[in-house]
Amino acid sequence: MSNEKGPDHSRRKERSRQAIFAATRALVAEEAYKNVTVEAIAARAGVGKQTIYRRWPSKSAVVFAALLALSEDAGGLSVALPDTGDLRADLKLVMRATAKEFADPSFDRPIRALNTEIANDAALAAEYREKLAQPLEEAKKARLRSAQEVGQLSADADLDLVLEVLYAPLFQRWLHRSGPLTDAYADSLVDATLRAFGP
Amino acid sequence: MSNEKGPDHSRRKERSRQAIFAATRALVAEEAYKNVTVEAIAARAGVGKQTIYRRWPSKSAVVFAALLALSEDAGGLSVALPDTGDLRADLKLVMRATAKEFADPSFDRPIRALNTEIANDAALAAEYREKLAQPLEEAKKARLRSAQEVGQLSADADLDLVLEVLYAPLFQRWLHRSGPLTDAYADSLVDATLRAFGP
Repeated sequence: MSNEKGPDHSRRKERSRQAIFAATRALVAEEAYKNVTVEAIAARAGVGKQTIYRRWPSKSAVVFAALLALSEDAGGLSVALPDTGDLRADLKLVMRATAKEFADPSFDRPIRALNTEIANDAALAAEYREKLAQPLEEAKKARLRSAQEVGQLSADADLDLVLEVLYAPLFQRWLHRSGPLTDAYADSLVDATLRAFGP
Repeated sequence: MSNEKGPDHSRRKERSRQAIFAATRALVAEEAYKNVTVEAIAARAGVGKQTIYRRWPSKSAVVFAALLALSEDAGGLSVALPDTGDLRADLKLVMRATAKEFADPSFDRPIRALNTEIANDAALAAEYREKLAQPLEEAKKARLRSAQEVGQLSADADLDLVLEVLYAPLFQRWLHRSGPLTDAYADSLVDATLRAFGP
């Protein structure tokens, strides 16, 4: 190889990236967010602090990258919505799974951490929207469009609004811990959304 | 006066409380939240740091108390909903005002700060619900009940769900900066909610 940064270098770099991300996710899941520091991530990943700072400018940036990679590595975590031809049944399946996910303690802390970052940093919020929220929303809208084509959803429904009415109550209830995240609640959001935007 | 902590003491204590709250709100509005410290609040209020720590255990606690008092001092900030007899018109008035409030930069930072605190502290979230969110929700539900009585809202609508479908999309759109907070958007939330829960 004429390139001195050959495959060994790339493999080492990727291994170190994975170790940093795994350490970050573990700490975010275990610790109060203010106790997750770049020092602690470096120690747990077995790398020097500078290895982290060479690639990410701040704790926020590495936390965000680690959580984003989690979804990318999973092949885009639940991107495609089921399409059995029955919109109500498909949405109930998805919303019940989403409610269960939000109610899971191992999901709770990392996603609170991510939300804290994006709520307080407009640039990160834009990156989050572009890289994570919008691809997910596009996949969901594809399912809603196929429902519009078969007359299960109003042809002139604003699909951004449909998704907000469906998901935002669950998100807010989780964020403010203002009520239970049950199957019945998931179903009631689907039913309300279909009454609002049905044919 | 036989009581050595007489009216002068009470007045001084109240003046110091007001100065601390005013300084807290000013800093929260001007600074990135991580730069708002108990030291900075004390300096701006012209009191010693210990004066703050004697009454509140942490930055979170004094920020939360200052924002809570803002609403209490205003006599419970927009607690009562208008009741002209036309639910749709009344809700559009309220939701347009709410969208305008959220879009106002002087409101934005303090409420982001408050949301950051309650998202990451279950005890504070419970206090927020009890002292601020629930009284507001009760006032809103009173208006929804009067609409149920005159047949403008389904008699068996779950009023907690109605409020979530009405407000949570606006809250999420503001928190994630994912879309404009316009009059048209406010109206579309009212229309969707009334389609979902109308008679």
